[in-house]
Amino acid sequence: MPGHRQSLAHLEHLGDATKFAPQIHALIPKCSLLENFSAAEVRLLAHFMDVYRAQPAIELIREGDGGDFMLMVLEGRIDVLKRDRHNTPQLLAAVEAGRTLGEMSMIDGEARFATCVATEPALIAVLDRENLARIIVEQPLLGAKILMELVLMLSQRLRVTSQKLLGLLDEQAKKAVSAL
Amino acid sequence: MPGHRQSLAHLEHLGDATKFAPQIHALIPKCSLLENFSAAEVRLLAHFMDVYRAQPAIELIREGDGGDFMLMVLEGRIDVLKRDRHNTPQLLAAVEAGRTLGEMSMIDGEARFATCVATEPALIAVLDRENLARIIVEQPLLGAKILMELVLMLSQRLRVTSQKLLGLLDEQAKKAVSAL
Repeated sequence: MPGHRQSLAHLEHLGDATKFAPQIHALIPKCSLLENFSAAEVRLLAHFMDVYRAQPAIELIREGDGGDFMLMVLEGRIDVLKRDRHNTPQLLAAVEAGRTLGEMSMIDGEARFATCVATEPALIAVLDRENLARIIVEQPLLGAKILMELVLMLSQRLRVTSQKLLGLLDEQAKKAVSAL
Repeated sequence: MPGHRQSLAHLEHLGDATKFAPQIHALIPKCSLLENFSAAEVRLLAHFMDVYRAQPAIELIREGDGGDFMLMVLEGRIDVLKRDRHNTPQLLAAVEAGRTLGEMSMIDGEARFATCVATEPALIAVLDRENLARIIVEQPLLGAKILMELVLMLSQRLRVTSQKLLGLLDEQAKKAVSAL
């Protein structure tokens, strides 16, 4: 049983994503990962993904857990939460259809950065590391395309996050100087 | 003439990296990008890279410029600087042999995030987007390996940067509360 099946055993498994390919294809305008995908590539990718249905208040990913899969929201709404220093979950984002989550742990296998909870009945398509590795070997051009889009997404997030961090540090330095 | 040749025309071009493959291979323990590379894969990759020599005080990458290449430091020392709100360059890092720089712009073509200046005579190996695309088509498994390592590196940097940003925001919230 692939790694993700165990950690998602509390969800309703709807089989592989092949029959959801048209729905996934319709998400392209909202989904950075798929922005350069053709219908044929979406069908190919869908073959390597699994679809699950989640009820509201169900955790899909838990901060701190190990994890080997990413998910794409096909329907519904998902809150992304991270615990602060008082261990209180703080809302980082609320995401909808087209958004992907959990890419970092799929790739590096490290602990989940945040918790993801369905807040409406949700449909998610899951890609795990084992299937990504199969894509790379069996469909190398599709594999390269997925990896290229992941690099792009992470690179853009890193630019935004680094800019925010430097902005805050700059602000702190300014306050420290004006307090002298 | 490939894009990087023009922007690096002020450096001494030493040809493709094939004859530097043993030196690149020796960097594996210090180079995240290459950590899972075999000697054969390094030789293959070297074939797609160009080597340049830079004298001290020479700019290799300039913040804000467009850019389509990344570089790997083979020898020497390079300062990474970013302008603060007063337009004064601030040192972000000083890096040595084994470090790669400029990956984000190679992938997304957006403006360079920081400036890189050689502070000692330096030897750099350059990979540009055009050659990365050639690797993906001509050597898809090597292409997937490079992209996978880039995703890993960006993912780890994003984790560290996000953690720092959340830590600072948390601190600010704490100060705001204690000032009430």
